[in-house]
Amino acid sequence: MNIHMIRYILCQVMRIEGALMLLPCLISIVYGDGEGLYYGIVAAVLICTGFVGCHFVPKDQSINVKEGYTVTGLSWIVMSVFGCLPFWLSGEIPSFTNAFFETVSGFTTTGASILSDVEALSHTALFWRSFTHWIGGMGVLVFLLALIPMSGGSNINLMKAESPGPSVGKLVPKIRKTALILYVIYMILTLIETVLLLFGGLNLFDSFCLAFGTAGTGGFAVRNDSFMSYGIYIRWVVAIFMFLFGVNFNAYYFMLMRQFKKALLMEEVRAYACIVTLSTLIIFWKILPMYESSLTALTDSFFQVMTVTSTTGYGSADFDLWPTTAKVILCFLMFMGACAGSTGGGVKVSRLVILWKSFVREVQALIHPKIVKKVKMDGKPLELDVVRSTTVFLATYMIIFLASLLVVSLDDYDLTTSFTAVLANLNNIGPGLSLVGPTCNYGFLSCLSKWVLTFDMLAGRLELYPILVLLAPSLYKK
Amino acid sequence: MNIHMIRYILCQVMRIEGALMLLPCLISIVYGDGEGLYYGIVAAVLICTGFVGCHFVPKDQSINVKEGYTVTGLSWIVMSVFGCLPFWLSGEIPSFTNAFFETVSGFTTTGASILSDVEALSHTALFWRSFTHWIGGMGVLVFLLALIPMSGGSNINLMKAESPGPSVGKLVPKIRKTALILYVIYMILTLIETVLLLFGGLNLFDSFCLAFGTAGTGGFAVRNDSFMSYGIYIRWVVAIFMFLFGVNFNAYYFMLMRQFKKALLMEEVRAYACIVTLSTLIIFWKILPMYESSLTALTDSFFQVMTVTSTTGYGSADFDLWPTTAKVILCFLMFMGACAGSTGGGVKVSRLVILWKSFVREVQALIHPKIVKKVKMDGKPLELDVVRSTTVFLATYMIIFLASLLVVSLDDYDLTTSFTAVLANLNNIGPGLSLVGPTCNYGFLSCLSKWVLTFDMLAGRLELYPILVLLAPSLYKK
Repeated sequence: MNIHMIRYILCQVMRIEGALMLLPCLISIVYGDGEGLYYGIVAAVLICTGFVGCHFVPKDQSINVKEGYTVTGLSWIVMSVFGCLPFWLSGEIPSFTNAFFETVSGFTTTGASILSDVEALSHTALFWRSFTHWIGGMGVLVFLLALIPMSGGSNINLMKAESPGPSVGKLVPKIRKTALILYVIYMILTLIETVLLLFGGLNLFDSFCLAFGTAGTGGFAVRNDSFMSYGIYIRWVVAIFMFLFGVNFNAYYFMLMRQFKKALLMEEVRAYACIVTLSTLIIFWKILPMYESSLTALTDSFFQVMTVTSTTGYGSADFDLWPTTAKVILCFLMFMGACAGSTGGGVKVSRLVILWKSFVREVQALIHPKIVKKVKMDGKPLELDVVRSTTVFLATYMIIFLASLLVVSLDDYDLTTSFTAVLANLNNIGPGLSLVGPTCNYGFLSCLSKWVLTFDMLAGRLELYPILVLLAPSLYKK
Repeated sequence: MNIHMIRYILCQVMRIEGALMLLPCLISIVYGDGEGLYYGIVAAVLICTGFVGCHFVPKDQSINVKEGYTVTGLSWIVMSVFGCLPFWLSGEIPSFTNAFFETVSGFTTTGASILSDVEALSHTALFWRSFTHWIGGMGVLVFLLALIPMSGGSNINLMKAESPGPSVGKLVPKIRKTALILYVIYMILTLIETVLLLFGGLNLFDSFCLAFGTAGTGGFAVRNDSFMSYGIYIRWVVAIFMFLFGVNFNAYYFMLMRQFKKALLMEEVRAYACIVTLSTLIIFWKILPMYESSLTALTDSFFQVMTVTSTTGYGSADFDLWPTTAKVILCFLMFMGACAGSTGGGVKVSRLVILWKSFVREVQALIHPKIVKKVKMDGKPLELDVVRSTTVFLATYMIIFLASLLVVSLDDYDLTTSFTAVLANLNNIGPGLSLVGPTCNYGFLSCLSKWVLTFDMLAGRLELYPILVLLAPSLYKK
């Protein structure tokens, strides 16, 4: 293990987090709520530790796959521990478990909250809460890669460990440039959404917070009723941006390069658009009798489909009261999630596309055993390794899902609550059904359940392995 | 396609079904309920058609994989259509949909019933209902292979298509002898159980019917309250036999050959025993406060665990009222099912063992990329093909599960009902939770849902592909 490089990267991450925490300090000064002190202290600790730790640059800067996963898992844990300190120190969230839950929920862009009264928080805390979504959405290591030049061609292992999806494509040969392009697209889209929300009559603070929540596909809102009280315009803007942030960012890169055909032909994006459209239409058909206006019904269907598919978790309607078919579709979309290479969670559309194709191939192979076809994606045959790791990923996902469900069920709430609580956290969505539905929160769960769900959020955001590797005993053997 | 051979096998199956249907005729004569007439007519039609169709023996008796699946799927459909005719003609089950549902539920050893008053049925109908479990448990094509000598070494493809599990092992080089050994073990175990039930004070008719239901891991009972009114002794006998019929039959073969060590070392059987024991203990711990006597609690835990794991579906307690943890475990066991090569359903213990090992291998490969280990089972490395087809099987399973759930949810019963109805039928268990719980039945569902669940039962029993192949358009292209 390249311990020195792991130490170096961790300290870089701390330094970046410290710097980013200065932003809420600024907000605190603007609103004069006096909370900035706690953020300032933690930021100072982070920056100082980071500077000292980064002083000694390791000679060997190469990172192998294992080290990539390890450092990614560790970075996110360190980031979350420090990130939750201001909430806890300021007393805005008095319990450490709750503060940690809320912060992990922020960074992992889950958006599950333990707070029943969000509006009671200071502006500073609200800002930091939403800002964690934005940081976590594209990933802090990707940010690091964009900022800091690192020698050793193996930085791709860092990117692989943090970016979602079965296979990570470099947009351009240089990792640093790839990371930079991704962040630039991310920032531009966020800014456009902020401006559009401003046009809708929101103030600057709310616009930024909601845009952060959409961009990271997080879901922390600034009002207690999430999106229930916003008008049709705001809902459509946010729903469309939830869709956009759920698209594989490679598509935007192709568009920037004026390769529109390539962008539009991406199989994953097309499958994503089809599934979203179809789901919206079925849900619209099922909920129409519950609504007076068909426009509202359509808005709510699309918003709910997008909030769940993109794994954002903003709530504009209580879908717990919707017909069972609608709930089944939403549960499936929760499980599926958004595209690989987007900021959304879930098991990703591309994995399901690969599975679907393997299934079709299997049936065809039974009927025409002599025609051996490879599973193709975007016209190129997939490596066997990608197919295999996709299926093993799903197995791993099921194992974690089941183990978590078993522990959460010890609280003895109903089956739907336990089931969707795990589903909503492992897939970084936020709200589930029944007692953890869109109008509820996670505050009432036992401490044990909260820790398990915290683990699930991290495992879900980092696509299982970076967190599992940390738990494997053989990692610590020489 | 070897159409002639498919015709030949189908007619053989009809002949066998006709012969087996003479047994209920006999029962009808003993009890003098006059129902035998209908069974006699159908049996006569089956036997005559079968005889005519079998008269022309095809020259080319080879069956490839595709034909094996096709003929298996067709056989089960033909068998079920004719099998349900007596129920329908006699008016004991007036609706054809219901009669077909009940018969498929019998042959596939599901045990889901649309009848609310089982005790109102004639002895003949009750016997045929339970007897279908026994026929379906080990499989009618396996029976055929045991009886009729067929040339062409490719009979293994028939056995593969009908026998559960990721890979089928021949016990002895000759398929016919393998099939014969399996059926002899099956008969002996059934007889032992019948005798033990007779000792428990049941009459001969009930003992046979319950033993048939256990042997096939079906679950049709002869009383309206299933097992609620039987004593502790009967419950333990049946629970232990549910365990035994859920074991891979290869283990019994090894025992017959006095290779006890080999039998005891079978990884799948050990995993099965461990999971069953652990589940029983956890459920026992959770339900103990609900019971006065710990013996009753233990009996009920073990019985319920076995009824679900072996996918039998007898009910001795209303587990819908149990704590959520117990329900989660039972749902998992429903999904898992019994061992491959047993009469039980579900996705099979061996598939989960393979998945678990692939998962461990994947994590190890991340940490020690240079040590490439193959996934092993019982000490032998598994072929990549088995691992791949296991994961594709699970994907297929999920796809069918989801599609069925979507249709069943259109009835708009609660989520738990829809979810467990599909789970219980696709895995051939019988009872689910909530409205389809152990004290309820499926009679209230819409026709559409019943047909979907009927499809699921067949797909589940035949492990998906034989039924899916029939649906693939490319099967009918030249």
